[in-house]
Amino acid sequence: MTADTVVLTDHPWPDLSVEREMIEAAGYRLVVGPISEGSAEQTEQLVAQHDPVAIMTCWAPVTGRAIAASSRLRIVARMGVGLDNIDIPATTARGAWVTNIPDYCVEEVSDHVVALLLAAWRGVTVLDRRAKQGLWQPSAAPTLRRVANRCVGIIGYGHIGKRTAHKLANGFGCRVLVNSPSLLATHADLAPLAERIAVAHLSTLQREADAIVLNLPLTPDTHHLIDAEFLRACAARRPWLVNVSRGGLVDTEALLAALDQRWLSGAALDVIESEPSPPPELLQREDMIITPHIAFTSDASLLELRQRASAEVLRVLRNERPLHPCNVI
Amino acid sequence: MTADTVVLTDHPWPDLSVEREMIEAAGYRLVVGPISEGSAEQTEQLVAQHDPVAIMTCWAPVTGRAIAASSRLRIVARMGVGLDNIDIPATTARGAWVTNIPDYCVEEVSDHVVALLLAAWRGVTVLDRRAKQGLWQPSAAPTLRRVANRCVGIIGYGHIGKRTAHKLANGFGCRVLVNSPSLLATHADLAPLAERIAVAHLSTLQREADAIVLNLPLTPDTHHLIDAEFLRACAARRPWLVNVSRGGLVDTEALLAALDQRWLSGAALDVIESEPSPPPELLQREDMIITPHIAFTSDASLLELRQRASAEVLRVLRNERPLHPCNVI
Repeated sequence: MTADTVVLTDHPWPDLSVEREMIEAAGYRLVVGPISEGSAEQTEQLVAQHDPVAIMTCWAPVTGRAIAASSRLRIVARMGVGLDNIDIPATTARGAWVTNIPDYCVEEVSDHVVALLLAAWRGVTVLDRRAKQGLWQPSAAPTLRRVANRCVGIIGYGHIGKRTAHKLANGFGCRVLVNSPSLLATHADLAPLAERIAVAHLSTLQREADAIVLNLPLTPDTHHLIDAEFLRACAARRPWLVNVSRGGLVDTEALLAALDQRWLSGAALDVIESEPSPPPELLQREDMIITPHIAFTSDASLLELRQRASAEVLRVLRNERPLHPCNVI
Repeated sequence: MTADTVVLTDHPWPDLSVEREMIEAAGYRLVVGPISEGSAEQTEQLVAQHDPVAIMTCWAPVTGRAIAASSRLRIVARMGVGLDNIDIPATTARGAWVTNIPDYCVEEVSDHVVALLLAAWRGVTVLDRRAKQGLWQPSAAPTLRRVANRCVGIIGYGHIGKRTAHKLANGFGCRVLVNSPSLLATHADLAPLAERIAVAHLSTLQREADAIVLNLPLTPDTHHLIDAEFLRACAARRPWLVNVSRGGLVDTEALLAALDQRWLSGAALDVIESEPSPPPELLQREDMIITPHIAFTSDASLLELRQRASAEVLRVLRNERPLHPCNVI
C-alpha cells in the first residue's frame, strides 16, 4: 500500500532534513516542489499528480484550481504568517484547515527593519559599496543621522510592529508613531501608548515620520496602500520607506516615480511586488537597499518554523484540532 | 595690525561656515589645512608659517615639531574624543592647554556599532550588493541570525561602551559582556552590572562572544591589543570583530591572517591602522564591512562638535579655563 502524500510546494532553504524526518516518521510520503518560489501551475501539477492529504507552502500560490485538483486534502499549512498565497474560501469549501504560524519570526523581521533603517541612516551599504571599489572617502560620505533624533512611523501594530516599536523607542530613543485601524478606533491622533510611542493617523505619519515602516498583512484593503497619492503627501518630510511585509502593499511604479521626484530619501525593501523576478534596474537603484525576502529567516527562526509547520500538519492528520486555524470548517 | 591666527589642520566635512563665523566674529583669522586628513608635515608647515595662538585638529598629527614651531600657542583643541594624534607632553611643556569633547558622538558611535552588527547578522551589505548586480537569490543568502540570541563582548566601558551595551541589551535582548581594567579591578568575572550586562575577563569574552566590539582609546598599552594571540583564542566561537575606535588597536596583518584562517566570522571596521590609505585589497574583502572613519558623524553631532570646539578655543583665548582640559598647565 502506498503511503499518503504530503506536498511541500517550495522551500527557500537548501535541505529538507527537518520536514522529511518528521513527516516520514509519521508514515507519510513527502513530495517536494522547487527549492525557491514555485508557480501556481507547478503547485497545481504537483497536487494533481499526487493527490496529497496535506499541502505545506512557503511562497507558492495554492490556488482554487490546486485545491479542486485534490480529493482528500485535510490541511493547507502556511510556513509563515501571511495567507495571501492561499485560496482560503476554496480550502474551507473543501472542508480542509488553513493554518499559519502567527507568532513566527517576530524577532527576525523586527531585527531586519532596524538593520535596514540603520544601514540607511548610518550609510553602511553605500559606504561599504565604495570600499569594495577600493575607495576610502570620508569627505564624500552622505549625511548620516543620529538615530535618537529620528521619528519612525509604523503601519500595522501586530506582534512584529510592537516589537519593532520597542527596539526603536527603548533601544535607541526614537519617537515612534504607530498606525492601525484598531488602534485608531480607540485612540485619538497622537494619543500616547507607551514611553515615546504614540498612535497616529496616516496623515500625521506622512507629515512627521523620517521613516515609514510597513508591518501589516496584504489584503484587498491594503493592496497598493502605498500609492502615488500616499507618497506625494510625504514629499515635505522625505522619509525612507521600509517594506518587510508584502510587495503588493506598494505600487512599485508609484514608488519609482516618487524616488525620481525625491519625495522619499530612499526605500529599503525586503519584498517587491514582482518578486521573485523584479526588474534588474529596480534592484540596482542607488537609492534603494534591497534584500531578497529573507527578513523572516535566521538559524533560530527557520528551525522553529519547519518544526512547527510539520507538527501542525501531523496534528491535523491525527484528527486533532490545529493549534493555529485560520478558517472555520 | 594683523589678527591673531587660529589654525584648523583638517576638516572631514565640506564647508567651514560654523568655525569661520565663530572664530572670525571673535576677531581671529582662521587658516585651514587640507579638507581630509593632513600629514604631520603639512601641520608643521602651517604652524611654522602662521604661528597660531590656537590649533584645532580633527585627525592631522600635531607633533612636538609643530608645537615647537609655535611661539604663542595657547590651546590645541581636538575636535573629537581621542588624543592619540596630539603630542600632549610637548603642548604641556609649552604651557598650552590640550582639550577634547569627551562626551561627543556617543549616540553616533553606539548607533554605528549596532548598524554594523545588524548589517553583519542580517546579511544587509552582502545581499544588497548582490541586488546591485541584478540578482534576487533568497536561497543563496548567508545564514542570518536572531540578534536576541547573540552574545556581544564590549572592550572599553566609557560613555560609548555603556550606550552600546544599553542598545543591545535593552533594545534587542542580547547578552552583553563588558571588559575594562577599572571594571575588573572591582568586579569578578561574570559579575552582573545590569539586566543582561555582565563584567567579563578577556578570556571569557573570547570564549563566549559572537561579536567583539572595541570601544576604547588607543594608548601605548592598547596598541595592537587585538593581535594574533588574541584572535587565535577566538577561533572556537568565530565572532565578528567590530572596530569603531582607533585602527592601531588592531594588528591588521594578524586580522587578515585570522580571517584567512576563519578564526573570525568577519570584521566590520570604521577605522584601519593604515588609513587614510588602506590597501585596496583589504577594503575589498568580502568578509569585511568597511566604512571610512565616519562613525562619529551625523548632522546633529557634527554641528555640536564644531560649535563646541570653536567655543572651547575662544574660551581659552578669553583667558578662561577650558571646559574639558586634558592636561595640567
